[in-house]
Amino acid sequence: MDADTDPVEFFDRIPFVDDLGIELTDASGGRAEGRLELAERHTSNERTGVVHGGVTYSLADTVGGAAVYSTVGRSTPTVDMRIDYLAPATGEELRAEAETLRVGAGVATVDVTVVDESGTRIAECRGVYKTGGGDGENVWQGNRGE
Amino acid sequence: MDADTDPVEFFDRIPFVDDLGIELTDASGGRAEGRLELAERHTSNERTGVVHGGVTYSLADTVGGAAVYSTVGRSTPTVDMRIDYLAPATGEELRAEAETLRVGAGVATVDVTVVDESGTRIAECRGVYKTGGGDGENVWQGNRGE
Amino acid sequence: MDADTDPVEFFDRIPFVDDLGIELTDASGGRAEGRLELAERHTSNERTGVVHGGVTYSLADTVGGAAVYSTVGRSTPTVDMRIDYLAPATGEELRAEAETLRVGAGVATVDVTVVDESGTRIAECRGVYKTGGGDGENVWQGNRGE
Amino acid sequence: MDADTDPVEFFDRIPFVDDLGIELTDASGGRAEGRLELAERHTSNERTGVVHGGVTYSLADTVGGAAVYSTVGRSTPTVDMRIDYLAPATGEELRAEAETLRVGAGVATVDVTVVDESGTRIAECRGVYKTGGGDGENVWQGNRGE
Repeated sequence: MDADTDPVEFFDRIPFVDDLGIELTDASGGRAEGRLELAERHTSNERTGVVHGGVTYSLADTVGGAAVYSTVGRSTPTVDMRIDYLAPATGEELRAEAETLRVGAGVATVDVTVVDESGTRIAECRGVYKTGGGDGENVWQGNRGE
Repeated sequence: MDADTDPVEFFDRIPFVDDLGIELTDASGGRAEGRLELAERHTSNERTGVVHGGVTYSLADTVGGAAVYSTVGRSTPTVDMRIDYLAPATGEELRAEAETLRVGAGVATVDVTVVDESGTRIAECRGVYKTGGGDGENVWQGNRGE
Repeated sequence: MDADTDPVEFFDRIPFVDDLGIELTDASGGRAEGRLELAERHTSNERTGVVHGGVTYSLADTVGGAAVYSTVGRSTPTVDMRIDYLAPATGEELRAEAETLRVGAGVATVDVTVVDESGTRIAECRGVYKTGGGDGENVWQGNRGE
Repeated sequence: MDADTDPVEFFDRIPFVDDLGIELTDASGGRAEGRLELAERHTSNERTGVVHGGVTYSLADTVGGAAVYSTVGRSTPTVDMRIDYLAPATGEELRAEAETLRVGAGVATVDVTVVDESGTRIAECRGVYKTGGGDGENVWQGNRGE
């Protein structure tokens, strides 16, 4: 993968990001922002319109990865992520902001906050991404010591 | 929501579960199983075909919730979830098995393992779901003490 | 337990808090602060003097619990906690600040930041505490639906 | 640090491990076991005798690190750890068993189960340890890309 690829362009080319409707709006210097326009297909309940937790997570994991990508210049697989749900999402949009807490030669630790269009905090996430060991493909081999 | 609803029927009616292609295959007695047939739209990289972490998470969160639903008989929002990625998913299918480690009056703790069709372990997840305080709607109010 | 007990007094009576040397300095309105004076017995390596991760965690879990106690007025067992280590602690003191992100009828979600005396961030923690179901004893029975 | 050091000897020399009373009983091939004899000083409440969560965590983090050490042959700092408390510990002893789920060139993922002397499951933990980038000292520099 080309380390000079613009993060926004790189992430907008990801099939699942496109399929889900995630739009990466900014990524530079270890910070990133993205948004997702909500539709009925994103919900866990037609009647209540509450968004499925997997949608919120997918936005957070993507924007968190973009924050790391923006500082290390290559694809960085997620090692682990924790998400804490703080309020049900029933609005028209989710917005995520990510920042790196630490970027190391081996791993980076990232915080991601997800809010709705009114600024209500929907979820807080914290995760670790792999920064070393090659690109998005062989980093996994590296992860497994192969 | 009807506490007597069959878990498999209940989860198969969830819009995002249907949109992503998750199939809940079993849920009873605090255990649940589900599967997801992988397509290019689920990937994070067209060339490598590696599945996006949000897809793996969405399957795990859904099957984990089904395990809790199967024992408490109602919708149980996720409070928090951790996912650890162990290998890249590049196969044709993801399979998830969930079991409750503890089911309490307030919360349940759940383990979910995700494998591919060859049995390779793709991810391990552990999460907490809300079991008390009403149904999928007002449980959140309950969560916020309202 | 008396819900009117001052949080600082209550936590300073905890045997392990006293044994480890944790001092709770403030707890009110869903926020708490504490400190720990470091000694060689707290380290994971005599030569480097790096503090053992269990010491940092113990301070964080205690101060996080105090933040919840300060708002719900009773002992609140930890359901789960994640700690991310950001830098090795080699100084003379650890300081922790905790704040509740959400306080519900069933559970509370809490953030805790641990720094050393120079302000270097040593660890970030996020956890869920049980707020309902009785006091520190029978809450566990409640947790297990007994 | 000497990569040939026996893990049990290495961990028994850790000041906090000795101070808390943790005994590492076995560590080889990516698995480790340890125990802790409980005393009043370990409790969070004299009256109930429930063990402080920091004690359970400290045992788990130590035994988890020993499992990684046993396979990579050197000190491996904890990157992050999640602990889920499943039952209150009020017995005479805690026992921990750890196994590596994945050991990579950069990080290892580990599961740790903590039980009491009757076999009651007290806590489940999952964490990531740093396996690359030098020894217990400069691995942190590596972590911070310095």
